[in-house]
Amino acid sequence: MSSEPSESLSPFGAARATVNDNPLSKDELRKYTAYFKASMYLCLGMIYLKENPLLREPLKLEHVKARLLGHWGSDSGQSFTYIHFNRLIKKYDLDAIFISGPGHGAPAVLSNAYLEGTYSEVYPDKSEDADGLRRFFKQFSFPGGIGSHATPETPGSIHEGGELGYSISHAFGAVYDHPNLIALTMVGDGESETGPLATSWHSNKFLNPITDGAVLPVLHLNGYKINNPTILARISHAELEALFVGYGWEPYFVEGSDLDTMHQAMASTLETCVKKIKEYQAQARDSGKSFRPRWPMIVLRTPKGWTGPRKLGPHFLEGFWRAHQVPVTDVRTNTSSLDVLEKWMRSYKPEELFDESGKIIPELKELAPEGNKRMCANPVANGGLVKHKLHVPDFRDFAYQVKKSGVDEEGSMARFGTFLREVVRANPTNFRVFGPDETESNKLSAIYEAGKKVWMGDYFEEDEDGGNLAFNGRVMEMLSEHTVEGWLEGYILSGRHGLLNSYEPFIHVIDSMVNQHCKWLEKCSEVAWRTPIASLNILLTATVWRQDHNGFTHQDPGFLDVVANKSPEVVRIYLPPDANCLLSVGDHCLRSQNYVNVIVADKQNHLQYLTMDAAIAHCTKGIGIWDWASTDAGREPDLVMACCGDVPTHESLAATALLRTHFPDLAIRFVNVVDLFKIIPSSDHPHGLSDAEFRAIFTDDKPVVFNFHSYPWLIHRLTYARKGQDNLHVVGYREKGNIDTPLELAIRNGTDRFSLAIDAIDRIKGLGNKGAAAREHLLDERIKSKNYAFHNGVDPTELTEWRWEF
Amino acid sequence: MSSEPSESLSPFGAARATVNDNPLSKDELRKYTAYFKASMYLCLGMIYLKENPLLREPLKLEHVKARLLGHWGSDSGQSFTYIHFNRLIKKYDLDAIFISGPGHGAPAVLSNAYLEGTYSEVYPDKSEDADGLRRFFKQFSFPGGIGSHATPETPGSIHEGGELGYSISHAFGAVYDHPNLIALTMVGDGESETGPLATSWHSNKFLNPITDGAVLPVLHLNGYKINNPTILARISHAELEALFVGYGWEPYFVEGSDLDTMHQAMASTLETCVKKIKEYQAQARDSGKSFRPRWPMIVLRTPKGWTGPRKLGPHFLEGFWRAHQVPVTDVRTNTSSLDVLEKWMRSYKPEELFDESGKIIPELKELAPEGNKRMCANPVANGGLVKHKLHVPDFRDFAYQVKKSGVDEEGSMARFGTFLREVVRANPTNFRVFGPDETESNKLSAIYEAGKKVWMGDYFEEDEDGGNLAFNGRVMEMLSEHTVEGWLEGYILSGRHGLLNSYEPFIHVIDSMVNQHCKWLEKCSEVAWRTPIASLNILLTATVWRQDHNGFTHQDPGFLDVVANKSPEVVRIYLPPDANCLLSVGDHCLRSQNYVNVIVADKQNHLQYLTMDAAIAHCTKGIGIWDWASTDAGREPDLVMACCGDVPTHESLAATALLRTHFPDLAIRFVNVVDLFKIIPSSDHPHGLSDAEFRAIFTDDKPVVFNFHSYPWLIHRLTYARKGQDNLHVVGYREKGNIDTPLELAIRNGTDRFSLAIDAIDRIKGLGNKGAAAREHLLDERIKSKNYAFHNGVDPTELTEWRWEF
Repeated sequence: MSSEPSESLSPFGAARATVNDNPLSKDELRKYTAYFKASMYLCLGMIYLKENPLLREPLKLEHVKARLLGHWGSDSGQSFTYIHFNRLIKKYDLDAIFISGPGHGAPAVLSNAYLEGTYSEVYPDKSEDADGLRRFFKQFSFPGGIGSHATPETPGSIHEGGELGYSISHAFGAVYDHPNLIALTMVGDGESETGPLATSWHSNKFLNPITDGAVLPVLHLNGYKINNPTILARISHAELEALFVGYGWEPYFVEGSDLDTMHQAMASTLETCVKKIKEYQAQARDSGKSFRPRWPMIVLRTPKGWTGPRKLGPHFLEGFWRAHQVPVTDVRTNTSSLDVLEKWMRSYKPEELFDESGKIIPELKELAPEGNKRMCANPVANGGLVKHKLHVPDFRDFAYQVKKSGVDEEGSMARFGTFLREVVRANPTNFRVFGPDETESNKLSAIYEAGKKVWMGDYFEEDEDGGNLAFNGRVMEMLSEHTVEGWLEGYILSGRHGLLNSYEPFIHVIDSMVNQHCKWLEKCSEVAWRTPIASLNILLTATVWRQDHNGFTHQDPGFLDVVANKSPEVVRIYLPPDANCLLSVGDHCLRSQNYVNVIVADKQNHLQYLTMDAAIAHCTKGIGIWDWASTDAGREPDLVMACCGDVPTHESLAATALLRTHFPDLAIRFVNVVDLFKIIPSSDHPHGLSDAEFRAIFTDDKPVVFNFHSYPWLIHRLTYARKGQDNLHVVGYREKGNIDTPLELAIRNGTDRFSLAIDAIDRIKGLGNKGAAAREHLLDERIKSKNYAFHNGVDPTELTEWRWEF
Repeated sequence: MSSEPSESLSPFGAARATVNDNPLSKDELRKYTAYFKASMYLCLGMIYLKENPLLREPLKLEHVKARLLGHWGSDSGQSFTYIHFNRLIKKYDLDAIFISGPGHGAPAVLSNAYLEGTYSEVYPDKSEDADGLRRFFKQFSFPGGIGSHATPETPGSIHEGGELGYSISHAFGAVYDHPNLIALTMVGDGESETGPLATSWHSNKFLNPITDGAVLPVLHLNGYKINNPTILARISHAELEALFVGYGWEPYFVEGSDLDTMHQAMASTLETCVKKIKEYQAQARDSGKSFRPRWPMIVLRTPKGWTGPRKLGPHFLEGFWRAHQVPVTDVRTNTSSLDVLEKWMRSYKPEELFDESGKIIPELKELAPEGNKRMCANPVANGGLVKHKLHVPDFRDFAYQVKKSGVDEEGSMARFGTFLREVVRANPTNFRVFGPDETESNKLSAIYEAGKKVWMGDYFEEDEDGGNLAFNGRVMEMLSEHTVEGWLEGYILSGRHGLLNSYEPFIHVIDSMVNQHCKWLEKCSEVAWRTPIASLNILLTATVWRQDHNGFTHQDPGFLDVVANKSPEVVRIYLPPDANCLLSVGDHCLRSQNYVNVIVADKQNHLQYLTMDAAIAHCTKGIGIWDWASTDAGREPDLVMACCGDVPTHESLAATALLRTHFPDLAIRFVNVVDLFKIIPSSDHPHGLSDAEFRAIFTDDKPVVFNFHSYPWLIHRLTYARKGQDNLHVVGYREKGNIDTPLELAIRNGTDRFSLAIDAIDRIKGLGNKGAAAREHLLDERIKSKNYAFHNGVDPTELTEWRWEF
């Protein structure tokens, strides 16, 4: 028997469903209802109670928390789904995790983690008895406790929420290369309005049914956001169905509020979906022929705050946005509201659900799976537990053979690509490269030799001509920084390794996502049972200084400012000056754990400086004096010429060459920074230099001309506490740009060789007339260069006669 | 006659279209083909030529630019659409603008601007003759010239691209309250993969056919991005159609490559769409009954690089990603490639398109509309031309009557809401408030009294119960920061005014969009014919210090760092300490032009300090000493207690009260900063204080304890060049948080009253034993407060006995 989904958009009434064969017996129906009520009871308890957790005495004001916090709105629909999937996990021995997309739906997950016993195992003081339950309630949204998202403290969670739109992309990331895993993913209807979520439905074009697991999305239409209706709950059934067909899914509808019929409909629909998933997987795996199934997804329409009071006084509660957060707000000041709450909580009959000791009764307990089959206990969601060590080939094998520093040219990024190719090759099922359509443009296409781009859409004849597409690939590209970042996060959170490559200017698109991942990592480090996961590696190229021809919109190196605001425990920033340094830094990042590593390096050809041994030594220190480029041997320097970033290094070296021509006796110390956080005081970052170490490099009384890749004030913000910071003159990108040649762009921002040399002359005392003459000459050269570029469209510095040498 | 859209996904062949009644005569067909070829010729000319613009002599190497830049891929499809809409503008006297969504499609727009004469009017040196054409070609993607996006230098453009995903939301913003305007909007198929674009299709649920104009999207499936196929070009026809039906549109397909049949199909389809738009508008306007039409949209499938060579040697060009950028790359080094280019360009027959002087021949010229009907000349796209002054009611009428500073409490944001209500009332057709579902939560719901939330989706009975929804509203809420920001940008770019309100932590979601708008504004200031538009006003609340119960994910005040990186010419940041200052600052921002204004203020109740007169004086200066809170009258201060932000002000005042208790004779100067850029040197920002002014406030040798709303190092980055910066001790959010009470959160970050007082004691010389005793007492109080919060879930400072007084 099946009932047609209704045209009605009302969430109330008997279940309407695409399929419904009433699979539950009467006894099962009774038990699932009881289990669901137990979960709802716990959700309310978390929001309200600090004492009297099982209502064994009449509810009094002193049992209620002083400040009421938490969210009720989406708990019921989420818990309902969780509970019904438990049945299928047991029946089909499934391997599954639960991802809670809607913001603030933690009570749904927490209540289930508690009922299935996972919570008490992880937190023994939240034991399965009245006293443990009391503590479990009190800690929720309480100082020193846990929040109303599925935070890192939540067992089974790899997805916190806190800002919306990443549930689907996290889910796909988790199931890639986990062929037996199903990610049951609740998607909020508010969340669905966000851009990141709206495009992430297309992730199904990147999932291979042979090698990857499955995502089963449950779009939860509960009708309202904080104060507004949701779009998807207010469009016609036909539009809604068409939308998901259009996204490439097969939608199943479960709509209503009547408990008995909803249980049957949900049990039936989830089971249909699981069977479909298994069928598609079997079809592809048995035949060895991959294809893009129209994977099933569920639209679950239930009232917001389902199972709560329909009205409070004259106002709607259940089925309205007033049910979003704390449903009855004035229980502390209004006795009748306290009564309402008590009656409501008692309507779930806690005395029938929990035994004498306060533990859920056995006939309900056995509805949950056991051991690691419990979704909150699945080790995949504590990624370090299932993580295999990344096999990293010896990066020294990819070294560029530097004969003379600063003479040969090489594409650092292309070389790095050959290293990444071998990483891909050595880790065929637990390392992927992600990017928004830029891997080739970023000169990393060597990777395709080991793993092509995953593409499950239709193929054209042209694709054979260098398309590098395959069902079975290792590079994930979609023109959505949000989606690829979400995939990568999901991939590493579930125990694997990866790297995202992107144009530098557009990485701001995912500022907020990276912030949230940093926060996730930081909290994880405070949770004893969380095991380390691989670092999130972000490789930025197409950098500001070589975006001259794309113009102003492509010039923004400010992602580093965003990252530098995060906790020093979790962020690392590297700006390798040449190919061998990039290899050394890249190797380090891939092996590291629990960080967000940002590497910034240009993709164009560059002069090369350090032999591999020198590069390793330099990168290990993170900062160093380059003796071969310095002229202060055995002397106090007259000038420190410092730089950070590959293009800045290049210009700073050219500037020292110019200065040497004019002032052969000048003692110039050349300093290069690879690891940006070296310059912060050691008290503020684990990588920071001590004041003595800093002074040994930069001095505290000599002029320092510092050429920085990004906005110059970031260096001042990192060094303001250093002695001698007054002598630090920093140049960098000052938001000046247009269609320029590279040298013109540098001149606009004062980071070119001429400006750097002039800045130095202006700061070195005692250069006298010779200084004035050199200054004039350099100014003249700067103008001539600019004019040359303006008339010819290329830089004079690209001509060989302009090359400087040591 | 109509031809069914094909199941084939190939872009090649005779046109397949949903409707096609062959509206063009043979002669028209010939002319539109010629016009289209003229446009294509110009596109190639821009990419390649610096001399010999009309190929009146054989093409030689010296005619070709030294560096080849620019993008060919999407030019043809975009120009094709532009040209066909010209016909309808003339036929139906339409008022239309053209929005170019795909990245780097500027040649399509530029060539049409040139052909219709707009370009030469705006830039007389790019005249309609051979010499003007030569300059027009050379400037493109050339140093000192213009870029390959529709940058501000492009007449008719309100949308640059440069990063993708905002074309639809910009288009909607432009047509709101412009009932006769049609925004013809090209959407790239790569762009369509971005999150912001994917959700912006739902904008149709927020457009009222009576009071707003229409958006006619043309999704341009050209099959490839930079190096990858696009998703929407590789899904079945059925899925594609379902997707747009699901998004609430009525899709029309035009697919193929054969020129004659494509002309007929496009002419017919665009005309059908325009008629549909007019029908829906008439239906709603004539009846006075609004509704949500299923607006038409077009799917245009043409080969990437359409009209170019199908193959170059063994490799595909037309119809493949190799056509994305410069199509023939080696013309400077390969003579046969130069031949290919010349043949290709000559195949458009420039000698038949341009007359002796180099001007387009009259029979083609007359295909374009005239005057302001030309899409690139539409004054709406130069917003200042059509901008009406905002009527701003006297904000002083909304003043909070402060009786005693720092004693009364008031909700600053709620009060500001009453002011905004009157702004809405006074400007019923050119001011809107935007936000992602948070206007009510942000305590701004008074606005609904003057203008409800626009909602064109279905209505439920519950909506009557405080839903504040209407077809005809002034508040725009959708849970997509990207979409509402895009709407607001489009709205002000087309000459209106508005404000976005958002939770502070999630504004990072649109970092990149705001960056791009800043860049747009900055470039506009260099374009002589661009007129000033209203500022982009961003009101941030639900700030970091009152996100204690939502926890760590909701704590991120770093948007200010992103904004502070942009050009000082275009950004302003205000942190008003109380209600009257918020009103004064808000009034100023609403009246301002060409800025991005960011206002940060908490939404909870706060102590109030300044009378309206004092607030105006304070905000006008932007920074000031609060004498009533200071004890240094007539003396050199022992300590400067500075603050910026409302919560920091509150704690700093409490700290001075504590210090006064312990040290009645201490000379404390209390400084409050409203306008953040006051503290930058005047050389770096127009608002900056001179060094003398800075010293007069902060001294240059006394300890300053500065309590800042955001990350503390932003203050150091702004003041590193100030004398006395060594004495500046800044506290702020240090990325330390969890579920805490407000005071606990402050204590974690060292910004609470006790920590501030202790910091002061540690820095003031000569306090001796009394200092040590006070320090110990304060430490003790800090611990006691924290313990109280931990056990009770609320702060002791919320108890009245903890109130401090002056």
